[in-house]
Amino acid sequence: MSSNSLNASIITIGDELLIGQTIDTNSAFIAREFNKIGIWVRRRVAVGDVKEDIRQALDEERKQSQVIVITGGLGPTADDITKPLLCEYFGGQLVVNEEVKAHVQYLFEKVYRRPGAMLERNLKQAEVPDVCTVLHNARGTAPGMWFRPPAGRGIFISLPGVPHEMKGLIKDEVIPRLLKEFDMPAIVHRTAFTAGLGESMIAELLKDFEPTLPEHIKLAYLPNYGMVKLRLTARGNNKEATEKELLPYFEQLLELVSEYLVTNEDEGLEIVLGKILKTKGKTMGTAESCTGGNIAQLITSIPGSSAYFKGSIVSYANEVKENLLGVKTETLKTAGAVSEETVKEMIRGALDNLKVDYALATSGIMGPTGGTAEKPVGTVWIAVGNADKTETMQLNLRFDRRRNIDMTTANALNLLRKFILTNG
Amino acid sequence: MSSNSLNASIITIGDELLIGQTIDTNSAFIAREFNKIGIWVRRRVAVGDVKEDIRQALDEERKQSQVIVITGGLGPTADDITKPLLCEYFGGQLVVNEEVKAHVQYLFEKVYRRPGAMLERNLKQAEVPDVCTVLHNARGTAPGMWFRPPAGRGIFISLPGVPHEMKGLIKDEVIPRLLKEFDMPAIVHRTAFTAGLGESMIAELLKDFEPTLPEHIKLAYLPNYGMVKLRLTARGNNKEATEKELLPYFEQLLELVSEYLVTNEDEGLEIVLGKILKTKGKTMGTAESCTGGNIAQLITSIPGSSAYFKGSIVSYANEVKENLLGVKTETLKTAGAVSEETVKEMIRGALDNLKVDYALATSGIMGPTGGTAEKPVGTVWIAVGNADKTETMQLNLRFDRRRNIDMTTANALNLLRKFILTNG
Repeated sequence: MSSNSLNASIITIGDELLIGQTIDTNSAFIAREFNKIGIWVRRRVAVGDVKEDIRQALDEERKQSQVIVITGGLGPTADDITKPLLCEYFGGQLVVNEEVKAHVQYLFEKVYRRPGAMLERNLKQAEVPDVCTVLHNARGTAPGMWFRPPAGRGIFISLPGVPHEMKGLIKDEVIPRLLKEFDMPAIVHRTAFTAGLGESMIAELLKDFEPTLPEHIKLAYLPNYGMVKLRLTARGNNKEATEKELLPYFEQLLELVSEYLVTNEDEGLEIVLGKILKTKGKTMGTAESCTGGNIAQLITSIPGSSAYFKGSIVSYANEVKENLLGVKTETLKTAGAVSEETVKEMIRGALDNLKVDYALATSGIMGPTGGTAEKPVGTVWIAVGNADKTETMQLNLRFDRRRNIDMTTANALNLLRKFILTNG
Repeated sequence: MSSNSLNASIITIGDELLIGQTIDTNSAFIAREFNKIGIWVRRRVAVGDVKEDIRQALDEERKQSQVIVITGGLGPTADDITKPLLCEYFGGQLVVNEEVKAHVQYLFEKVYRRPGAMLERNLKQAEVPDVCTVLHNARGTAPGMWFRPPAGRGIFISLPGVPHEMKGLIKDEVIPRLLKEFDMPAIVHRTAFTAGLGESMIAELLKDFEPTLPEHIKLAYLPNYGMVKLRLTARGNNKEATEKELLPYFEQLLELVSEYLVTNEDEGLEIVLGKILKTKGKTMGTAESCTGGNIAQLITSIPGSSAYFKGSIVSYANEVKENLLGVKTETLKTAGAVSEETVKEMIRGALDNLKVDYALATSGIMGPTGGTAEKPVGTVWIAVGNADKTETMQLNLRFDRRRNIDMTTANALNLLRKFILTNG
């Protein structure tokens, strides 16, 4: 596993991670970026704002990894633990770095346009250990720091915990330096995204395939809102050769799951759907009740989605379903808001009012309350359609509210994807 | 820090965490639940599906924590690493547990209603080490496992990695057992949520307050989309006494930041806004361009939001702004879609068409493309209003697309909150 690869550890610092107030998205970003250039993140460790715990993590991780990334603990109100500790750990002194100081002043004067808001504690961010190389943080006041202790091996990189600042530093400063520093091994991934078959059944399809994989090629199953991502990972010395070696295995995999294949790229349904619409030069819109705009926001989170997405009518209240989507009062009375009839009428309303080629509609009971004996929590109706035809689907979900919304979203996007592919 | 408290470590297993394909939300959930009952999560470690790495993590964490939670590595297609390893580590044998077997059969027959889909690998999930107590997983086929090795101290708890299964096990099985097992120390948090002042300026307001805090009460700054959460954490032996001791400090803190205070609970703006609307018996709706439905989905993610949220018109295309919100063609031509005039007209359209008491509108350029010299990426207009009055706000954001959307969402919700409080 770890043979043939350069190992990294990520140490995240901050009590907020340990009490669960913040979800750590930084580590996933760093892992993805490192993976692309062939660095294998072997461990991730989160510790609190406690000197001894940080020191212990540094001691442990340097034993197993050549690259150690430390995030967090550097903000203007951080408890002054991380920077002094790093200084001590690597045997340096805190000194003012004039370039960082000028950058902090520039940010307050020119970017934030609030020079009066600059305080002693902001200027203090220009103090760095004299034993590090400063990494320029274009997006904020806390600089990154690059340590290469003379004794022992390994590179230590300290970055601020604010995600968009950390991301800029990784891309602009850390990755280019690492590429110069190391002769990278290759890690290549290929991902197939399937829908319509459970994890175990997919595994049955692949039970003769998996044992044929060589030691350095691994297959992973990643369940994703009722769908399954299949990832092949190959390790080697050379990127091109490794890619070439992996390809026939990946093609075999695609063949075996072809009936259930959504995409052979590592991308979400919203991207797959967007590509199909773009290729066909068609537009879409949504009429959302139980998903409350979640489908629209997911689609519009993709840059360039305005080319095919026109809008949504989020009809949370029944009167909005009537007024803006033309759902009949009678339908709401007899069949109810959560019914096949209602989502079908929502499709007609969305097509007419948003003037789109394809529409998608959802109505359901997401919980935790609102269920009845006849329609328990988790009852969902989805419809998709164009001017000629409408297709519907019923779900009986059994999760919490958030997951019910996400499952409905994924199923609706997939239903529309299949509808467009089938009905031109 | 760690005195006075029961320590826990969380070990998450899975290559998908180390290559960044999955974001670890499980650890945050476990940390929150443990915190509530007074268990301090001291470290979180993520390792891959590698036997030696898992073993090493177990060895390390048991040295520092009395409770070790292991998540992941237990699904039907897991690489058969975690369960055999735990078996070996604690000196047991894998045996079929009849109750788990019956439960797996029940799930396939009665819940999934696909008995034919049950495979050997699903039944294999009923195999558990004979040295553990089985924890019933009501939501899935992989059982939890509770180990109390006779030699050494500590409790080891192994849980599946699927979030909703893990959550059920933590709440129904793990927490009640831990409460029986240990005499818990108390950890009490109080959180104040401020808006309108940066982290450094808030720190200035609190510079005389912070040094007055006793050793066992800590203040943390948690920046949150341009707003700042302030959290006081106290540790003690008794929950009630600790709460009582913390209260005057928290009240002092609230007093110091009163001008910028949004809420004195640890809750998001969408919850604060919902409470205000519910109390007043008023309704709202949104007209969203650049946020693409994100504000609507955030508001409707809260159970019971149908009491005050009627719906949204997501007008991504200009023609939807004209057709469904009545924005004038002339306005779009002269002032442009991203302008004060447009968001003002969107408010009128939303109030009239959604028939709500309050409306909120957004229009902006979220990036990475679409900016011009006059209106660069990050230019955003927000409006809020009722039948009598409209207020607007301009933002100049400088982040990536996702963060620009989230910042716009937070600012819009806060602007509406203030508007309702000021204008009745």
